[in-house]
Amino acid sequence: MRVEIWSDLVCPWCYIGKRRFESALASFEHRDQVEVVHRSFQLDPTQSGVEDRDEMLAAKFGLTRERAARMNEEMAARAAQDGLEYNLSGTVVGNTADAHRLIHLGAAEGVQDAVVETLYKAHFTDRRSLFDHGSLVELAVEAGLDGDRAREVLESGKYGAEVAAEHREAQRLGATGVPFFVVDRRYGVSGAQPAQAFTEVLSRAWADSKPLVVTDGGGEACADGTCAT
Amino acid sequence: MRVEIWSDLVCPWCYIGKRRFESALASFEHRDQVEVVHRSFQLDPTQSGVEDRDEMLAAKFGLTRERAARMNEEMAARAAQDGLEYNLSGTVVGNTADAHRLIHLGAAEGVQDAVVETLYKAHFTDRRSLFDHGSLVELAVEAGLDGDRAREVLESGKYGAEVAAEHREAQRLGATGVPFFVVDRRYGVSGAQPAQAFTEVLSRAWADSKPLVVTDGGGEACADGTCAT
Repeated sequence: MRVEIWSDLVCPWCYIGKRRFESALASFEHRDQVEVVHRSFQLDPTQSGVEDRDEMLAAKFGLTRERAARMNEEMAARAAQDGLEYNLSGTVVGNTADAHRLIHLGAAEGVQDAVVETLYKAHFTDRRSLFDHGSLVELAVEAGLDGDRAREVLESGKYGAEVAAEHREAQRLGATGVPFFVVDRRYGVSGAQPAQAFTEVLSRAWADSKPLVVTDGGGEACADGTCAT
Repeated sequence: MRVEIWSDLVCPWCYIGKRRFESALASFEHRDQVEVVHRSFQLDPTQSGVEDRDEMLAAKFGLTRERAARMNEEMAARAAQDGLEYNLSGTVVGNTADAHRLIHLGAAEGVQDAVVETLYKAHFTDRRSLFDHGSLVELAVEAGLDGDRAREVLESGKYGAEVAAEHREAQRLGATGVPFFVVDRRYGVSGAQPAQAFTEVLSRAWADSKPLVVTDGGGEACADGTCAT
């Protein structure tokens, strides 16, 4: 089975949702036959520059900075319940396209999940920037990527088309926000639901995943080194 | 939608099946939303050394070499109907694991289909070897890969585990031979069936692919830069 997870790196519920999904997956009987693929979604693909998270929240919701800081504390308390340390006040947010492009490089190099984890922790826990190339190259190296290769990808714009295409694909599938989980393109889970919801969807998709409906014309195939003709 | 195609590079029906599938895909209305992934299957993973295809056929079926050559001619005639030129007599066959590992490198570099095409043509049309590293590196470069990187992958054994895992996955899905096509892990097509069979499965899978069954707890997600809390 394949689980695709659309998320954005500055979305607090996405990191929490990832943990809840992983918790469900860890206790899923057929977990060794589940492939997890991270997909790109940008909450605000038009964003330019960086801004302070408290100020961004205050402006977006028309709140005082104090109230915005309190919202961050409430979110941190929720994250703590899933074992995550959030330090949101004092972080900056910006356009996540570059960070998403690094996730694509991670996929090509077989370390996609490590890149996603490293970027989430950098942003939500360690107040490190995902919005300048110097910082992203450091994080790429920490995640197991080659630094020169990461810089080359960042500077060339590579994977930009893939990031945009995945965003559109999520919209086509009906996602209006993230995290958005899709199992075998059959079942979706919208939002950071409790682990139990993921367990149910995994079980249902598994039951549904076999047997395949196979069209077998009987014949034109090769088996055991011999080919029917 | 995702179509996974399991095949082996020395399987004459696989190359033909690929063409028939491509023909169906080219006239499929939603072709721009179909992702094609090539998967590894080895008809004989235990094979060591190389042998002449005529002799291999003669030994396997207990035929004279003349009859084996005639089987090759019959296969070439069938391939020609799908626009392929087969020159089978005089080719050598051997273990395809190394070639399959290059296909994985091709996937990582975004040129998987070009690698598959190049390898098929080399084997079935041009009588070039898929069984020594020198020849494989040349073919890798022709397919758009970096030669040094290809050599590094071949010599390190990289992607060997993935090749074996995909073979097992095909068996788990019920494949007994190749080519074996799987659409969204819901529908399978066994063998090089006529293009019409692929058209039908693509249409059926498309109708079946949306809408997703989405579990929406309503809430804990981020949209448009704001997060429900």
